[in-house]
Amino acid sequence: MEKERQEFPRDFSTLFDPRSIAVVGASNVPGKWGFTIPVNILGGGYRGRILMVNPGEKTVLGFPSYPTLKDIPEPVELAIVTIPAARVLDVLGDAAEIGVRNVVVVSSNFSEVGPEGVELERRLARFANEARINVIGPNTMGIYSASASLCAMGSPVTPIRGGVGFISQSGNLGVQLLRWGKSRGVGFSRFVGSGNAANTDMPDYLRYLGEDPLTDVIALYVEGLRDGRAFLDAAREVSPRKPIVVLKGGRGELGGRAARSHSGALAGQPELFEGMFEQGGIVEAAHSEEFIDIVAAFDALPRAVGKRVAIMTMGGGWGVVAVDACEREGLELAELPPEVISELDRVLPEFWSRGNPVDLVGNLRRSSHFQTIDALVSCDEVDILIVMGALLGKQFFIDSIVHGAMKPFLSMLRNHVKRVPSFVFSQWRGSFGAFYKQGGKKTGGGGTGGAQGTLSSSGLNPNEAWQWTDTALVRRLQKLVKKTGKPVITVAMDEREMSAAARLQSKGIFSAPTPERAVRAAAKIADYGIFAGNRDHPTTGFRHSQ
Amino acid sequence: MEKERQEFPRDFSTLFDPRSIAVVGASNVPGKWGFTIPVNILGGGYRGRILMVNPGEKTVLGFPSYPTLKDIPEPVELAIVTIPAARVLDVLGDAAEIGVRNVVVVSSNFSEVGPEGVELERRLARFANEARINVIGPNTMGIYSASASLCAMGSPVTPIRGGVGFISQSGNLGVQLLRWGKSRGVGFSRFVGSGNAANTDMPDYLRYLGEDPLTDVIALYVEGLRDGRAFLDAAREVSPRKPIVVLKGGRGELGGRAARSHSGALAGQPELFEGMFEQGGIVEAAHSEEFIDIVAAFDALPRAVGKRVAIMTMGGGWGVVAVDACEREGLELAELPPEVISELDRVLPEFWSRGNPVDLVGNLRRSSHFQTIDALVSCDEVDILIVMGALLGKQFFIDSIVHGAMKPFLSMLRNHVKRVPSFVFSQWRGSFGAFYKQGGKKTGGGGTGGAQGTLSSSGLNPNEAWQWTDTALVRRLQKLVKKTGKPVITVAMDEREMSAAARLQSKGIFSAPTPERAVRAAAKIADYGIFAGNRDHPTTGFRHSQ
Repeated sequence: MEKERQEFPRDFSTLFDPRSIAVVGASNVPGKWGFTIPVNILGGGYRGRILMVNPGEKTVLGFPSYPTLKDIPEPVELAIVTIPAARVLDVLGDAAEIGVRNVVVVSSNFSEVGPEGVELERRLARFANEARINVIGPNTMGIYSASASLCAMGSPVTPIRGGVGFISQSGNLGVQLLRWGKSRGVGFSRFVGSGNAANTDMPDYLRYLGEDPLTDVIALYVEGLRDGRAFLDAAREVSPRKPIVVLKGGRGELGGRAARSHSGALAGQPELFEGMFEQGGIVEAAHSEEFIDIVAAFDALPRAVGKRVAIMTMGGGWGVVAVDACEREGLELAELPPEVISELDRVLPEFWSRGNPVDLVGNLRRSSHFQTIDALVSCDEVDILIVMGALLGKQFFIDSIVHGAMKPFLSMLRNHVKRVPSFVFSQWRGSFGAFYKQGGKKTGGGGTGGAQGTLSSSGLNPNEAWQWTDTALVRRLQKLVKKTGKPVITVAMDEREMSAAARLQSKGIFSAPTPERAVRAAAKIADYGIFAGNRDHPTTGFRHSQ
Repeated sequence: MEKERQEFPRDFSTLFDPRSIAVVGASNVPGKWGFTIPVNILGGGYRGRILMVNPGEKTVLGFPSYPTLKDIPEPVELAIVTIPAARVLDVLGDAAEIGVRNVVVVSSNFSEVGPEGVELERRLARFANEARINVIGPNTMGIYSASASLCAMGSPVTPIRGGVGFISQSGNLGVQLLRWGKSRGVGFSRFVGSGNAANTDMPDYLRYLGEDPLTDVIALYVEGLRDGRAFLDAAREVSPRKPIVVLKGGRGELGGRAARSHSGALAGQPELFEGMFEQGGIVEAAHSEEFIDIVAAFDALPRAVGKRVAIMTMGGGWGVVAVDACEREGLELAELPPEVISELDRVLPEFWSRGNPVDLVGNLRRSSHFQTIDALVSCDEVDILIVMGALLGKQFFIDSIVHGAMKPFLSMLRNHVKRVPSFVFSQWRGSFGAFYKQGGKKTGGGGTGGAQGTLSSSGLNPNEAWQWTDTALVRRLQKLVKKTGKPVITVAMDEREMSAAARLQSKGIFSAPTPERAVRAAAKIADYGIFAGNRDHPTTGFRHSQ
């Protein structure tokens, strides 16, 4: 398609921080976009003026309704248009007349539906370029802006506030990412569904987000680019300062065809895009789940300075799987120096792996987990730490109580009722013995706890109980991250722990649901860290992981 | 390591269906394996006899305790051993004497910890081979058997009963898979942590599961194989009848080294394993999450007969992403014949994609979703259907009510309190109008619903409400799967919908959390379906997807 985007000074301030919004096509009928969007704006907590435009209504959703934009007796900063395509150009004329600089065109049936639509969109773009109006869309899902609490969206989602600026060439995919962000604890600064991008496209948004003080990480879903050169220029400007993560839709031949029929975008050759992403210092996600993983990792973690990874694992199999992933992703396993090995010799059971990954071989002494984490993060040979199995989540404790006490007790009641008193007594006696044993050892080994006391994994130590909480672990990790500036990634494998992971994310720690996904994210942050750290030597370029 | 596994007729009946179990090393002390394992056996609901062996106790957990296995005055069918390594050989002697055929050795400190342990394990294996005892382990996490409600495990997990037989060379990884299975609705028939596999290894278990009537799908976590030829022979026997899914740990050089230090296994060259898996008709998972995905897919779905996929999507972007994934995985997009296109023309909005993927372009008429699904599954050109976006989950409705009604109402109360009566009245009037409009159209369009009535997406149709429930969708899908025998995969993208996905799985429908994971699973079942269907032409072999 002909290039309609034109360079003119873009002012998105009234898009993301409008003091007043007019909804053209506002409606009282549930199911219509003109109903859904103002309802979502209200639900999102927007505090500015909401102005309804619908010549057929006296009030919409309780607000007075005006026949046209020009009839509104107060300033309008942002217009959102939901009326049929044929009448959008007139609205744009009105918007130009009253000085609106940003118009979100939700209406569809433009270039995505054939030659007539293409022509209509072209006229729209030309007019907007002349009037220096940013048209967002047409055919957009809407926008979100954290600073204005503005959810001008066709779908009911209120993202968490945060540092990710996100532009998506697919509305549904965009909204789903915001939803995943919500359940993963990833906060957003801005979201734009770019729709058909009549006169405002990726390079414009990219430049804005690059300067936007609320945005730390930029996420893009891209199917095609009309002006690859402008995109590359913008990316090169921004990427050394802020990571740009892209999910590319329409990579192959079939996918490219599907993309054309979806957004009318010329998806182009995959090699072409790969080259462009590499030159632009852009991090590419392989699929949608990885997209949110990597965005979450960049959002939460400090910048990595290298690719040497240390891995702590509670079980050998997971260590093996994680090492496989490191090798696949081009990461290096940190070589632990002798002093770290001997430090760990003091806190771990005799037959620990004595190397990286550090396999705790089922050792259940929590204080030694903490000491291991400390030693690994503080080690100069380590750039990134991955901690597996230590984050348990509430569900683990609930399960442990259910499986370890309630179910066996019920089973005794049902099948061996006569033995219940002795069962209860045994457990009580055993537990008491275990507590006593621990206490005794502690005293015997001196104030710091002798080696024997530390290494034994039988019995329960009441002093350790609080250390087993996720809060204790997270506090410890946060302190270390703050002290060393190194990224720490945890692995929390239970799906039901997502809320725990979300809490972690908001505290600056990235948590992945599998070791492989943790490693993949580590590889991406390492690659970017090396790229962004190497800008004094611009020939280095950006190294993609395999 | 020297080959210790010996061919002798294996009888695992008392391993998986023991009428009595002796726990040697039973303990009243929480935290000890001798405590955890009988507690988990009790908690799992095992109804047979539990016999405790511990010379230092009179009772353990309410049961009488005997000094040795030989002192037990009743038959013992299975022995589980948790005492220190040095004394395990004596217990094996006792077991041989009283005729126990299966011994689970939980105790560690054998070949995984150095030359002394290697020698000890060798002696153990030789004795077991002579006595024709199956030693499970040593250094095993334990076993699970659905038919006996037997959770003889070191970790508190009660799997769902089902058709997956699972052997794992890592205990922790194995237990985590069982946990994932639980949250995903994947049921297990048997689980064995094979540990160091002193005299009983993958080929023995594989042959057993191949014949086991409770097992439909076989899952293996493999780090290394002592006897590749025996494994390949067993796999070749079994794979045409039952799918074998493997996750290979220690693929690369570093991973192989990590595997050696974990399970002492010789991980070997990756090419060697790839060739073996291909020859054995084994489906390989690329990582742990894919492992549970593929196992779940095989567990739930009927066998695919080809690789032509139809995709239904609610949004173009997800369609693009899914097509990309199909291309990557070597699947074909089904070509919809003209009669299917015209059938869909009747039920979908004018500007639907008119091809595969079928993009519903935001059409909210549920009956047309159902008609689309019917048309696609029934089409002869389609082998597998992937349905995206149709499965909503309870959370969607809760969110919709919160975002669409409660939050906007609260916002009105807070910021525009004087407008609340008019806001409520507007909504009420609009909703009423929408209902009325639908009713009118329905009558006007005749009993079957005219094209106008079907295509309009404004307004609400009360008759459609029940169709929007997941129950209605699942029933419809089940009916279609039963009628056509074709696999249908749904995509439910909200993490909070996992419980809905678990329900689906138990009803014979596989649900993936992303389009890409749905496609990946589809590729694996298509490859296996073609392999297993082509056994008359044994030269065809098993085609790995890219």
